[in-house]
Amino acid sequence: MKYQRRLLAGVSGYVPGEQPENPHVVKLNTNENPYPPSPAVLEALRALDTESIRRYPDPVCSRLRKAWAERFGLPGPEWVIVGNGMDDILSLAVRAFVDPGDDVVATYPTYSLYEVLCALHGARLVYHDLDERFALPESLYQATGRLCFLTRPNAPTGVAATREETAALCERFPGVMFIDEAYVDFADDHCMDYAVRYENTLVARTFSKSFSMAGLRVGVAAGHPDLIAEMMKVKDSYNVNAFSQAAALAALADWDYTRACVERVRASRERLRQQLMELGFRVPVSQANFLLAIRDGEPSARALFEALRERNIFVRYFPVRRLENALRVTVGDDAQCDALVAALRDLLRG
Amino acid sequence: MKYQRRLLAGVSGYVPGEQPENPHVVKLNTNENPYPPSPAVLEALRALDTESIRRYPDPVCSRLRKAWAERFGLPGPEWVIVGNGMDDILSLAVRAFVDPGDDVVATYPTYSLYEVLCALHGARLVYHDLDERFALPESLYQATGRLCFLTRPNAPTGVAATREETAALCERFPGVMFIDEAYVDFADDHCMDYAVRYENTLVARTFSKSFSMAGLRVGVAAGHPDLIAEMMKVKDSYNVNAFSQAAALAALADWDYTRACVERVRASRERLRQQLMELGFRVPVSQANFLLAIRDGEPSARALFEALRERNIFVRYFPVRRLENALRVTVGDDAQCDALVAALRDLLRG
Repeated sequence: MKYQRRLLAGVSGYVPGEQPENPHVVKLNTNENPYPPSPAVLEALRALDTESIRRYPDPVCSRLRKAWAERFGLPGPEWVIVGNGMDDILSLAVRAFVDPGDDVVATYPTYSLYEVLCALHGARLVYHDLDERFALPESLYQATGRLCFLTRPNAPTGVAATREETAALCERFPGVMFIDEAYVDFADDHCMDYAVRYENTLVARTFSKSFSMAGLRVGVAAGHPDLIAEMMKVKDSYNVNAFSQAAALAALADWDYTRACVERVRASRERLRQQLMELGFRVPVSQANFLLAIRDGEPSARALFEALRERNIFVRYFPVRRLENALRVTVGDDAQCDALVAALRDLLRG
Repeated sequence: MKYQRRLLAGVSGYVPGEQPENPHVVKLNTNENPYPPSPAVLEALRALDTESIRRYPDPVCSRLRKAWAERFGLPGPEWVIVGNGMDDILSLAVRAFVDPGDDVVATYPTYSLYEVLCALHGARLVYHDLDERFALPESLYQATGRLCFLTRPNAPTGVAATREETAALCERFPGVMFIDEAYVDFADDHCMDYAVRYENTLVARTFSKSFSMAGLRVGVAAGHPDLIAEMMKVKDSYNVNAFSQAAALAALADWDYTRACVERVRASRERLRQQLMELGFRVPVSQANFLLAIRDGEPSARALFEALRERNIFVRYFPVRRLENALRVTVGDDAQCDALVAALRDLLRG
């Protein structure tokens, strides 16, 4: 194509998990929360009038930044940036801190969007292979680069580096440390305090998972105001719309509701993990709202993925190194998990 | 700042027009529509349930792309991309078609965000000065570069290049022609057909102005599927949220309502233009929903801007070459325009 950048010729873009329109699908493929958002969210949205549609939104999400800073004990709103989903936050970090040609660091395997973002930017993503138990490798502590993505808990493994390991990495990495805590509300602990403790560290969250607001696109990063200021330069002027801002504020205020949903998901996760292991899968201990179910031999993971899909049960299969024999399964409610386990039992018997 | 890209050291980011919280402000500074969006928009939003919040939105806005293609006689949905507002569309175009170090072309003066986007990308924006009547200069037809932004009608002048001039530019420009039609619904004609006629041409629109949906962030670009495919690679996976998609579909379906609001704005525009000229301003014929009011001598445009602001009347002042003596005034409803004219009359008498 005559007008194509050479850089983009080899890039196919990120392929998101399928979003079927059929409401009867057991949808365990994109790590949504099985429970609805807080009733306060829908109330806040229904309370918005046409003025909220007609006028531009607050370009810098003042109220949400303030509420986030208060909720997590950050020194002030200038320590917070809000994005149009975590994807926006990730893209802003690459564009704010990395020059084309520079190195970005991540573990392998991890969230595959990082690699796409680096390719689109002309940066090089240097992977450090997780060890056989998907723990951080020693080599990561010697890594150099402008930016390091640490997904904690990691996707698609569910395994979380310890707080101590994460602290050591923040201390040693010479560039900007980006701790992607998209799934952290499902974990036993978090690292939001590192956004204050380390001047090179950003800690990012999303409203898509624990808050059950994937449809509204809100992501947040916290870090030193000097880091936040650079990302603010790069962001679209009005990157988060009026409805998303109102919804996120309402969700944040109803923390107890979110906590209760998270506890239900955590309980289902342990139950599902046991059932999958009983079916012969290896399943790393997960701190997220999904499980990585690994199984060698026949039928292959890909065959299982496809057979499940025919039964209207959607899970995720990544046809890449170290994940060929694995399915990533979102923890749904118990009925959804039971449907998955019954189908797998049937397929494996066959 | 230790982690700063050198590229960003000199960039301060785009400064959007002020968004005051005080509802008593006569807000004529960011070109919003004075009339609310179609009642169908609020209905569509209130009809959304928690599932639309909980689940990811359609990542590629299938329904909206199809509806847009049908509405404007484009060959199919693959000729359309939807963005999180026009800002997102503009940023995608720069990142999809321009390599850092390359030239981008625009007229001067024009929408100042183009310059910010180029600076953030490490591209050079080459300006071609509009002539004394703010018409396209001859030099523009010899311009070269990867991308050319033509704002039609132009901002902040309100002047629209003719369709013939625009066609000539599409034919001659060797890179991608981006016709920014943010304000075109207020004009006498448009160039959406050029998206089909010229393989190098993108025609972009927004729902923020004529559709009165600035708070919801929806922008659209139409062009050859090869161009659209490149922009799709660069966009965030879920760049337009579920509420914005539903609202835009509803607005597009109620075209008669939007047309009626636009006609009211056009009538107010002509009335306000006469009044401003009677006050001694030069006011170019505008095809947009704003007027550029130019006046030499004292009090200066900046002084008028500030004095109006003290009276809670917000207009826009750009402290840059060729606009030092001008105010950009959004066409509000007649009451808002009257308030502006009365205040100006008072200030100029003083």
